[in-house]
Amino acid sequence: MTDPHVKLDLERHARIGLEEAVLCQGKSATQIDTVLDRVASAKASILLTRLPAERLEALSPHHRAKLDHDALSRTAYYDWTRPADQGHAVAVLSAGTSDAPVAREAARTLRYYGIETQEIGDVGVAGLWRLMARVEEIRALPVVIVVAGMDAALPSVVGGLVPGLVVAVPTSTGYGVAEGGQTALHASLASCAPGIAVVNIDNGYGAACVALRALGIRRGGTAI
Amino acid sequence: MTDPHVKLDLERHARIGLEEAVLCQGKSATQIDTVLDRVASAKASILLTRLPAERLEALSPHHRAKLDHDALSRTAYYDWTRPADQGHAVAVLSAGTSDAPVAREAARTLRYYGIETQEIGDVGVAGLWRLMARVEEIRALPVVIVVAGMDAALPSVVGGLVPGLVVAVPTSTGYGVAEGGQTALHASLASCAPGIAVVNIDNGYGAACVALRALGIRRGGTAI
Amino acid sequence: MTDPHVKLDLERHARIGLEEAVLCQGKSATQIDTVLDRVASAKASILLTRLPAERLEALSPHHRAKLDHDALSRTAYYDWTRPADQGHAVAVLSAGTSDAPVAREAARTLRYYGIETQEIGDVGVAGLWRLMARVEEIRALPVVIVVAGMDAALPSVVGGLVPGLVVAVPTSTGYGVAEGGQTALHASLASCAPGIAVVNIDNGYGAACVALRALGIRRGGTAI
Amino acid sequence: MTDPHVKLDLERHARIGLEEAVLCQGKSATQIDTVLDRVASAKASILLTRLPAERLEALSPHHRAKLDHDALSRTAYYDWTRPADQGHAVAVLSAGTSDAPVAREAARTLRYYGIETQEIGDVGVAGLWRLMARVEEIRALPVVIVVAGMDAALPSVVGGLVPGLVVAVPTSTGYGVAEGGQTALHASLASCAPGIAVVNIDNGYGAACVALRALGIRRGGTAI
Amino acid sequence: MTDPHVKLDLERHARIGLEEAVLCQGKSATQIDTVLDRVASAKASILLTRLPAERLEALSPHHRAKLDHDALSRTAYYDWTRPADQGHAVAVLSAGTSDAPVAREAARTLRYYGIETQEIGDVGVAGLWRLMARVEEIRALPVVIVVAGMDAALPSVVGGLVPGLVVAVPTSTGYGVAEGGQTALHASLASCAPGIAVVNIDNGYGAACVALRALGIRRGGTAI
Amino acid sequence: MTDPHVKLDLERHARIGLEEAVLCQGKSATQIDTVLDRVASAKASILLTRLPAERLEALSPHHRAKLDHDALSRTAYYDWTRPADQGHAVAVLSAGTSDAPVAREAARTLRYYGIETQEIGDVGVAGLWRLMARVEEIRALPVVIVVAGMDAALPSVVGGLVPGLVVAVPTSTGYGVAEGGQTALHASLASCAPGIAVVNIDNGYGAACVALRALGIRRGGTAI
Amino acid sequence: MTDPHVKLDLERHARIGLEEAVLCQGKSATQIDTVLDRVASAKASILLTRLPAERLEALSPHHRAKLDHDALSRTAYYDWTRPADQGHAVAVLSAGTSDAPVAREAARTLRYYGIETQEIGDVGVAGLWRLMARVEEIRALPVVIVVAGMDAALPSVVGGLVPGLVVAVPTSTGYGVAEGGQTALHASLASCAPGIAVVNIDNGYGAACVALRALGIRRGGTAI
Amino acid sequence: MTDPHVKLDLERHARIGLEEAVLCQGKSATQIDTVLDRVASAKASILLTRLPAERLEALSPHHRAKLDHDALSRTAYYDWTRPADQGHAVAVLSAGTSDAPVAREAARTLRYYGIETQEIGDVGVAGLWRLMARVEEIRALPVVIVVAGMDAALPSVVGGLVPGLVVAVPTSTGYGVAEGGQTALHASLASCAPGIAVVNIDNGYGAACVALRALGIRRGGTAI
Repeated sequence: MTDPHVKLDLERHARIGLEEAVLCQGKSATQIDTVLDRVASAKASILLTRLPAERLEALSPHHRAKLDHDALSRTAYYDWTRPADQGHAVAVLSAGTSDAPVAREAARTLRYYGIETQEIGDVGVAGLWRLMARVEEIRALPVVIVVAGMDAALPSVVGGLVPGLVVAVPTSTGYGVAEGGQTALHASLASCAPGIAVVNIDNGYGAACVALRALGIRRGGTAI
Repeated sequence: MTDPHVKLDLERHARIGLEEAVLCQGKSATQIDTVLDRVASAKASILLTRLPAERLEALSPHHRAKLDHDALSRTAYYDWTRPADQGHAVAVLSAGTSDAPVAREAARTLRYYGIETQEIGDVGVAGLWRLMARVEEIRALPVVIVVAGMDAALPSVVGGLVPGLVVAVPTSTGYGVAEGGQTALHASLASCAPGIAVVNIDNGYGAACVALRALGIRRGGTAI
Repeated sequence: MTDPHVKLDLERHARIGLEEAVLCQGKSATQIDTVLDRVASAKASILLTRLPAERLEALSPHHRAKLDHDALSRTAYYDWTRPADQGHAVAVLSAGTSDAPVAREAARTLRYYGIETQEIGDVGVAGLWRLMARVEEIRALPVVIVVAGMDAALPSVVGGLVPGLVVAVPTSTGYGVAEGGQTALHASLASCAPGIAVVNIDNGYGAACVALRALGIRRGGTAI
Repeated sequence: MTDPHVKLDLERHARIGLEEAVLCQGKSATQIDTVLDRVASAKASILLTRLPAERLEALSPHHRAKLDHDALSRTAYYDWTRPADQGHAVAVLSAGTSDAPVAREAARTLRYYGIETQEIGDVGVAGLWRLMARVEEIRALPVVIVVAGMDAALPSVVGGLVPGLVVAVPTSTGYGVAEGGQTALHASLASCAPGIAVVNIDNGYGAACVALRALGIRRGGTAI
Repeated sequence: MTDPHVKLDLERHARIGLEEAVLCQGKSATQIDTVLDRVASAKASILLTRLPAERLEALSPHHRAKLDHDALSRTAYYDWTRPADQGHAVAVLSAGTSDAPVAREAARTLRYYGIETQEIGDVGVAGLWRLMARVEEIRALPVVIVVAGMDAALPSVVGGLVPGLVVAVPTSTGYGVAEGGQTALHASLASCAPGIAVVNIDNGYGAACVALRALGIRRGGTAI
Repeated sequence: MTDPHVKLDLERHARIGLEEAVLCQGKSATQIDTVLDRVASAKASILLTRLPAERLEALSPHHRAKLDHDALSRTAYYDWTRPADQGHAVAVLSAGTSDAPVAREAARTLRYYGIETQEIGDVGVAGLWRLMARVEEIRALPVVIVVAGMDAALPSVVGGLVPGLVVAVPTSTGYGVAEGGQTALHASLASCAPGIAVVNIDNGYGAACVALRALGIRRGGTAI
Repeated sequence: MTDPHVKLDLERHARIGLEEAVLCQGKSATQIDTVLDRVASAKASILLTRLPAERLEALSPHHRAKLDHDALSRTAYYDWTRPADQGHAVAVLSAGTSDAPVAREAARTLRYYGIETQEIGDVGVAGLWRLMARVEEIRALPVVIVVAGMDAALPSVVGGLVPGLVVAVPTSTGYGVAEGGQTALHASLASCAPGIAVVNIDNGYGAACVALRALGIRRGGTAI
Repeated sequence: MTDPHVKLDLERHARIGLEEAVLCQGKSATQIDTVLDRVASAKASILLTRLPAERLEALSPHHRAKLDHDALSRTAYYDWTRPADQGHAVAVLSAGTSDAPVAREAARTLRYYGIETQEIGDVGVAGLWRLMARVEEIRALPVVIVVAGMDAALPSVVGGLVPGLVVAVPTSTGYGVAEGGQTALHASLASCAPGIAVVNIDNGYGAACVALRALGIRRGGTAI
């Protein structure tokens, strides 16, 4: 019997160079299992996001066995074989320890597509020299993903120091006016540094997709 | 005598591949003239944004003479010679006629750096076939800037159709819940299409800078 | 003894053609039982909404026995006999899998009144061809309910393709700026397609009532 | 020379039964003239909204001569011949004197399509008997448009009294928390009466389009 | 040992005619016990609000024994003897069943001071005749407290029908735009009926205090 | 010819003890003249609010001649004879000089009904002794209207000092977070003093109506 | 005759070490003249803020003659003699040219009290080395006022580099999400650097008062 | 193995006079243990904030043994020896019992640095005399931290009474419009008293850091 609410977009890759991924938040275990059944039938692999360890347990054992799950980022690769290295590297910076899950989600998404990442954490601007010590290394990379909550001052500082594409991911860490990430989002959008690309709050996956689209440019606009 | 509040960042280009531009909104004519004095002393050119025709009249005549001003986008080039074509093209789509000034600001910024643009206006999704008629042409370009106000459904539709980098510029057009552009901004950030890069409301200049950073990738990460 | 806080509006149907329904959220099990006592006394049937499976267990067993409950939509029919088919059909579209509970709430409400529904799920605009494959079928129906969260681009696209009444139901699915459904609500209200009718966030029941009122028109304005 | 930012959607009527209209707010006089040039070339008529008397003066005299302008609603009909009466009537209620422009915009849009309207003003709920005196008359009509600002209590009261389709148009009248119309909008969406269809703040045009779509239902779903 | 964070304001009654009450939300069981120790030492009685049944269990048994607790309103009277009837009556109206806890909090506060209340529930404006059946009774009372969530249309309708002081208490019941009570609050403040006094969301206690202050007027301004 | 958008509610006084007043903001001069025509026909008097001096000039001369206008409060009495003194007095406090127009609107409304007022301005809590010097005088009055913008700390301090009914009117004075009056409104609603009645931002008229309703209590609930 | 709405707090200096200042925004020219009359009678001097050049013209000539007005900051000193230097210096940093008026307001307020300021403008973090070139100089000062709009990243960077008291003044410069200054305010409050003191948007005067209070500490807590 | 997301800033004290502290909210027990490992290796002490009793249990036993934890404030000192008294005292006022945790967080932070505090609780302005009884004592201190939720009227009253530095900490206590602390935050920022320094909602730690920076001034700007 077919569930009218689950359709899989297996041709998305051919169209835009990115595969469909499964955002597990807001889906029941049954719905996720149904998606994985279809992926299995198509002999495809797929990326799952926002799948915390405790929800993993509710999936069918035969699907769980094919999942490569990472607890920090709450991502999983389904029936996945590491692709050939695409020959690019992306820096993934984060401002504080609490931003690590989102940074890792970006890194895991990029690795799914064969892109190497350079994770550089805890470089918030209150301790500027920690960033400065790494700046030459970062300047050499074509794309820099910057993950930051609270005041999100880091994308502005990075944007003034490097020539590559800077993708800011505001996070919902923090409390008071920082809670929920609106402050970090608005600060990223209002950055005084020119040309900062912004994605939704906590959307490490989306930032990685921006990077993939931009790197596709380099390879002539064809799908990755 | 030096004004402590006006400093020019003439080395920005060397650092990040983008020159400083002058956001005229919020600056007095005197302050803008002071900036242009310094640009003239440095024998440099510069881009001015948000300079409406009526404020142009308040500037010094000798500076006005060197300004190539565009009324629709409210941008001006100061003492500017057209650079060699960089060999790239960027599509600049807009959803409605009211979005034209912001789309043109993006196009003028790109042209300042020698990038060709393909302006495609009035392709909002309520008349989907107008977009569909141009989709193959857009798919061939590495970067697509999408300017849309109100419900900003256009970036999502475009993001599902093309593989290139999609940069959404929400605009403040419209009334009621659309007024000020928050709805368009939030819809762009919450897009159901993966990997949409978003900039501040009405920030055509910023979208062009994102494109310039991304195209820099192709040319090996060196400054443009 | 009568509880001064529970009154049943059994004549609503005569007045406006719609029966009173019981919104279970915010009511205690005791209050719901009291309502059902009165419905039983009046030998009437009634529709209950927002009654999750776990709360169902807290109701009196003799009431539970008369409830036809649907877990996905959290709706229940009390002492209900399927009415004669009213000879109309309504399309219920939804953008993503997470929107299914709200879509089903609308469908179940319509079925309570004898209206057939065509549920078409997972047709978000990021994969436009999934919608296009069904568009002729949808165009033939007088009312289309469109359930969508996040950027809610779907009502605008549908509104530009079909002549019938389009009722948008924004949903609270998604995270970051999409969380809670304000973005989907505002995007639906600011739609670039003309004549989109909007109801409250997650209000599948309300959308069905709009459809019932509009279909009543056809039958001469008398109660259904 | 063609302006890339002005396109006319002359086939919209065939597609969805509604013609394109011109929202003049946010467009320059030159842009409006360009639109009217194209309408004239196509020997079509068109509806213009949000065109205040003072902006009318800026249009080309040969276009002005063909405009039937109404100052209260700021609407104009271009080269328009009154269509045959469609045999329907719609009630347009408004709560206060300040809501008159929006109510008239709805009425003028309906008349453009050959629909009669019954305008009933100043029936806010603080003086409930003014509404009660007219309620039987309103109950007989298939669609009721209710225009109300401030607390927007009127749609809820009307929705509990009449069986027809109720379309609420919140307005931006009032001050303090009422300013801008968010309170009226949210109160309309959260109405305790079932099945209220809501449109954007001050969007009398949109409410009329909802009515046109719903009345189309009655006439078999074909275009009006 | 004295806790520097707990002080009791036992002279408040002499100053403003109202005793201090204990808002239990946000206080630990230890802090509440400390307050009650001081009340007991002073041989006083006190009113506690927002004390749910489950938190009651955490208090000292010797204090629990002196508490007259009401589960619906989450209020408790400590060591309280019913005062002589003050010879006034206040109507407490509520729009829906979910508003009952807040309405009861107002009623319990008034009873603590010896004021009779007339609780009239479930009279939301979607079923206007339920209110109309009681309107003469309500008109005879000097103060009417109106508890309503969602669109809060009830205070406006009541304010247009009765001459007494109308105190609106918006509630946080409902979902979507109604969630949290901001819509009900703003609608109450923007009421089209003149002279509606508004208190904080869910603040039944505060509404009762407004009534007590107003009734104090009648008794010559001395404390109650 | 009758304008369907102007109706006069001349029986409101009999119903709720308050006459209808004319809020001039949002009405055209023509609409105000129409209202006054009807008032003149009925040989009634009426209160007009939010009528600035410059708009006064646009009214018909024969109406202007009958208007007693006050520039500070922007109120006017039409064809008004001072009523007999009602034997009550109300204090109208305001925190700063910028709050004077709103305080005066309350005072003028009360005077229209024959109530004396005690205007005490510039007693903001930053200079607490200015309030303390007057506190005994204020304590003796049954109703105290407190007009305050910015942080609106004054209602809380007054509410802790006097037993009478305290009506807070938040104002839109101030800048930054104070702009528009939301901060003052929310601070008034969240007051730590019990039983503060709040009205809409800048609504001096509404505060006076609350006072009139409360004073009506003393006179047995009959209309004033 | 005395205006009940204008009171002067001439003893504030004795109480808290700060004189009253006159916020001219929201006050009429007549009200300002009344204040100055009283200052003149008391043979005192006073500081006026938010007095733009054009409003200056509306004051009485004999008061204008005693005013030392600064157009950039819109401040004026009335009948003021430069006090002895207090032996302190405060740094006033600003991020962009548009922040200059607010920075100057802080500097002028400090100078009114005899404090030297070091104005350092245009040191936004997008060009970090401009700040770095001055950092040793800034580190030596006990108080640093940081004026920044848009993303307000500057206070965080400064707070991580200097040991003195850092007072952040968010400004309303910028557009889109930056408009009105909420983003800059929230980013300042959510700063990742510890111990940033924040004042209201555009409140250069308030920041100077914080500095004066803090410097008073050094001089033993007595009034300045 | 090193975790790229945990870096310790052990030189912060030398730079700005404040040590790094560990905000435990948003960090896993593993991440906190990693931080403490590094602190232990460096033979340093550190302050932990937002560490509730139940999370304490999840840390490594050998770290727990070195923690001096305070349940009310949820702070802990790691491997800490009481420093010599710095010879300063700071007043920490709070408005209500629910504000105690935040007040204590400020006090504990100051004590970590050797500063004495005077905790004065439950002095909200609704009972003004409780504050007045202590005002001379408070006036003598150079810094006053004022912790207040709801309407946050206390900082304004204190700011008008004392000459020292006043640091306002808005709290998230309360419900309705007070919930989350935005009202308290905005009221503190819009204070009618001059020179109130504000920190983020519930940020007792930050207020203490402001005090430490200000007291550093007295000691010549060198680190504490």
